[in-house]
Amino acid sequence: MNHGWSHGAAAVAALTFDVDAETPILAHGGRFADRPMVMSHQSYGPDVGVPRILDLLDEMDVSATFFVPGWVAEQRPGLASSIVDRGHEVAHHSYSHRSPTTMTAAEERADFERALDVFAAQKIEIIGHRAAMWEASTTTFDLIAEYKLRYDSSLMGDDRPYLVEASATNIVELPVHWSLDDWEQYAFLPDPNIGPGIESPIKVEQMWRAELDGMRHYRCLFNLCMHPFLSGRPGRMMALRRLITYALECGDVTFAQCGDIAKWAMEDTELMHHPLPRYELDPQVYPD
Amino acid sequence: MNHGWSHGAAAVAALTFDVDAETPILAHGGRFADRPMVMSHQSYGPDVGVPRILDLLDEMDVSATFFVPGWVAEQRPGLASSIVDRGHEVAHHSYSHRSPTTMTAAEERADFERALDVFAAQKIEIIGHRAAMWEASTTTFDLIAEYKLRYDSSLMGDDRPYLVEASATNIVELPVHWSLDDWEQYAFLPDPNIGPGIESPIKVEQMWRAELDGMRHYRCLFNLCMHPFLSGRPGRMMALRRLITYALECGDVTFAQCGDIAKWAMEDTELMHHPLPRYELDPQVYPD
Amino acid sequence: MNHGWSHGAAAVAALTFDVDAETPILAHGGRFADRPMVMSHQSYGPDVGVPRILDLLDEMDVSATFFVPGWVAEQRPGLASSIVDRGHEVAHHSYSHRSPTTMTAAEERADFERALDVFAAQKIEIIGHRAAMWEASTTTFDLIAEYKLRYDSSLMGDDRPYLVEASATNIVELPVHWSLDDWEQYAFLPDPNIGPGIESPIKVEQMWRAELDGMRHYRCLFNLCMHPFLSGRPGRMMALRRLITYALECGDVTFAQCGDIAKWAMEDTELMHHPLPRYELDPQVYPD
Amino acid sequence: MNHGWSHGAAAVAALTFDVDAETPILAHGGRFADRPMVMSHQSYGPDVGVPRILDLLDEMDVSATFFVPGWVAEQRPGLASSIVDRGHEVAHHSYSHRSPTTMTAAEERADFERALDVFAAQKIEIIGHRAAMWEASTTTFDLIAEYKLRYDSSLMGDDRPYLVEASATNIVELPVHWSLDDWEQYAFLPDPNIGPGIESPIKVEQMWRAELDGMRHYRCLFNLCMHPFLSGRPGRMMALRRLITYALECGDVTFAQCGDIAKWAMEDTELMHHPLPRYELDPQVYPD
Repeated sequence: MNHGWSHGAAAVAALTFDVDAETPILAHGGRFADRPMVMSHQSYGPDVGVPRILDLLDEMDVSATFFVPGWVAEQRPGLASSIVDRGHEVAHHSYSHRSPTTMTAAEERADFERALDVFAAQKIEIIGHRAAMWEASTTTFDLIAEYKLRYDSSLMGDDRPYLVEASATNIVELPVHWSLDDWEQYAFLPDPNIGPGIESPIKVEQMWRAELDGMRHYRCLFNLCMHPFLSGRPGRMMALRRLITYALECGDVTFAQCGDIAKWAMEDTELMHHPLPRYELDPQVYPD
Repeated sequence: MNHGWSHGAAAVAALTFDVDAETPILAHGGRFADRPMVMSHQSYGPDVGVPRILDLLDEMDVSATFFVPGWVAEQRPGLASSIVDRGHEVAHHSYSHRSPTTMTAAEERADFERALDVFAAQKIEIIGHRAAMWEASTTTFDLIAEYKLRYDSSLMGDDRPYLVEASATNIVELPVHWSLDDWEQYAFLPDPNIGPGIESPIKVEQMWRAELDGMRHYRCLFNLCMHPFLSGRPGRMMALRRLITYALECGDVTFAQCGDIAKWAMEDTELMHHPLPRYELDPQVYPD
Repeated sequence: MNHGWSHGAAAVAALTFDVDAETPILAHGGRFADRPMVMSHQSYGPDVGVPRILDLLDEMDVSATFFVPGWVAEQRPGLASSIVDRGHEVAHHSYSHRSPTTMTAAEERADFERALDVFAAQKIEIIGHRAAMWEASTTTFDLIAEYKLRYDSSLMGDDRPYLVEASATNIVELPVHWSLDDWEQYAFLPDPNIGPGIESPIKVEQMWRAELDGMRHYRCLFNLCMHPFLSGRPGRMMALRRLITYALECGDVTFAQCGDIAKWAMEDTELMHHPLPRYELDPQVYPD
Repeated sequence: MNHGWSHGAAAVAALTFDVDAETPILAHGGRFADRPMVMSHQSYGPDVGVPRILDLLDEMDVSATFFVPGWVAEQRPGLASSIVDRGHEVAHHSYSHRSPTTMTAAEERADFERALDVFAAQKIEIIGHRAAMWEASTTTFDLIAEYKLRYDSSLMGDDRPYLVEASATNIVELPVHWSLDDWEQYAFLPDPNIGPGIESPIKVEQMWRAELDGMRHYRCLFNLCMHPFLSGRPGRMMALRRLITYALECGDVTFAQCGDIAKWAMEDTELMHHPLPRYELDPQVYPD
């Protein structure tokens, strides 16, 4: 029997936390390591945000997925296992958080495998992947297939899980979108310039709730991407708490880890395919 | 008898959808074709957004106008006819979505005609035009006149239809404006940088409703420009649904396709003329 | 007897409209004259916005001040007198709308005087001045003194009228501020880039009303700067109408033209002085 | 007995005002001293904003901390003492407001000491420090330790006071954050470009109130950073008044000067340590 990828829910909610810590800043240049304010802005994520988030998830009794760069797991040896021990999933989020589109295929492979090595050493099972900056390359999917991961979560070709094919393997894509990302709402630093302004949690809660209602109507995957250094702040945590409370009250929303959603999607015989786009361009029309 | 361009409505609402798909990104450089996330962000428009929009229009029983670049119609052979078959208008939106202000006159002519060829081959009748990026050149209007299109929808010289003259022909202009465009509200990509942030559909709905009320007061053309890759998202679709519902409840708003509005405008003997602006500049005051 | 500059009102409201038309764009380069969309975006101001604004002011029975660049008055010969004939003030807003801080003193003088010549030829009496982009230079104030204008409205040193001294003459400053300017809220063009986004009139009305209430508390000059090509749009006009209605209902707000406010300020023996700031900088601390 | 750093309050509110005046602009280049509008935009802070803020604090009966660059105290000889005389704390905010990350260690030392000299000459006792632009360097903390200041307020590693160690001395850090800073909400100037837009005080009040509520829940330091040239405007002052009124009504919020909070933190035997972050980077992964 085919339960469908959503197992009967109007919308499936994946709470995902990208535990980037210092990596997105260091990817702008190692020199930023000497900037105490900038580094403290980032270390707040694992030091203050993550424990607070874990407590909220306990209190609400929902489980979530944490995408952790290998470098971060390495720097803070107990971090990944502390997340798994609380009942959540840890997934692959590159080693260094450098964008695959800025690396050669060999560099990307090295970065990808180095993260796998870190998690293997820490005995953390990895079944899914999200590209740094969501900027997957075509190489990315070959690596996911080669290492037999179940899913990726970096593309935007739909708002329901779908299949992409790489190296003759079907990979489940759990699509993301900028409108369900806290970065564009909350991130600000003058140097490196990581965002232009700061929105109120009231606006963000309202926008995400509107999206959840739309996704209940259209039966979608509410794949919410947050960063502990951003969403771990007190007022934003309260907004997230209200959002989860609302979703639970709806009665037709199921919270699930990405790995489980990917498994349900794999079993859904009617799941859509959106092949990785390939274009033959006329260079007269679209020069490089 | 002169019914006036609005045929008695307080405001005429033109729902217009620019089905740009990948073209605005490829116009930044063909290299972006190798970025799976960026391409999936755009292909969402025709793949997910358009069917959802067509269903909403059916449900609300209003008809609309879809501006489709020739390249998009060519890549997805059934797309344009699927729109026409549901009772809507398909109009000219360039071939490649490169801005006319970045092309020579010969390049613009080639691009313009190539799009006409695509639609002719698909037996789609074209009576109107909107410039890519709204960045019409003076050549643009000569081409519109030469190919006997009825209207353009790229200028901002009024908020009611008006006549512009090119090559001794009167063309109806159905003016647009940034405040009735979803791009400035919803578009975000880091690379290429297509917009600085993401607004809530609640704000957008409120702003567009305020504009509609103003236009009912001043008896204007509510020419709303949306992009399926942006407005096709669930929460935004719900906001559009509420906006249409509100407009229908007003009782004094008429929904119409651009081609019909242009026809009514042609028959309006009191329609305003705003000639294409020509300036003789003192180069001491305004050097190039 | 000293009535004070406010003549007893809690706040004095100066509605000011900068009728810039094409000038702020042409100041970026004469080449923009060949961009029909961009030019139409600007010509909307005098063609559609100004008549609509004049009607609203009639309906509300309040008078206002229109700052008009000489180039605009010259291009549209009846424009300035049509404003004066409706009972409003026309004031000096440079000839070309190029910023004084980008011109030599000689260039600024030529530009300043050319505008005076245009208004003299049109028999429009000029008693006040606002710098293009508010970017007055020190030369600006010498010119204002030399030509015996009564006031300037370009600085931000207070939120009540004050005296600045230039060439041994006292000039009344009617200060402005970015928070009471429609440009930062409504202006958008991709090229030239004149602003990053588009806010809802609902937000703008709320913000300006909050500022008016604050100014009633602190007894200030509510010096509101609008542009017909921006605020002339229907939804924004409705917001302005509601704002004026609210101010009238307050009972303690007086609407006045800038020339009259400057006269009252001149007669106020307790008016503050804020001399034009002069600094002796240590070049070791602040190199150029 | 250990009262804890909060002395029993759910949240401690530190109202802090960075009296930057012209310095953040002059740090972009001494040439800006010749721009009357830009300078008046900044002088509004000490001239209009500070007296208004002092009156509000009197009226509300709360005390605050004013971070004053030495250059500003020097230019306006009575300013710092007028603040102290009203019962508030004046603290170190560099001499020139140039960012420590743009200076050599010797330049930073000279700038740091010059500010101390100014305050010593004015007999203003200094016990705390905030880096210009919050951009502390590692040198900054050595200087704070050397001159035996009690606290710094420039980092973001937590939202409760914590200890950092420099030169074998413990310094209390009173952390700040962009979301509790008026600059990102209210600052705008086209040249130098100091911010992209202008938010409504209604949004800002709502956001800060949400953060205060979150901080009451998580028992944090509500360290609010404002600038008199920004928050001194009438509508923004009214929003601040409402925020303070709300906080007082909560009953569990204590207002305190930074110096006192730092003293309480020093006495808190359970205060957290977050060492200044030091990283050993693989230059292959993170080149400079």
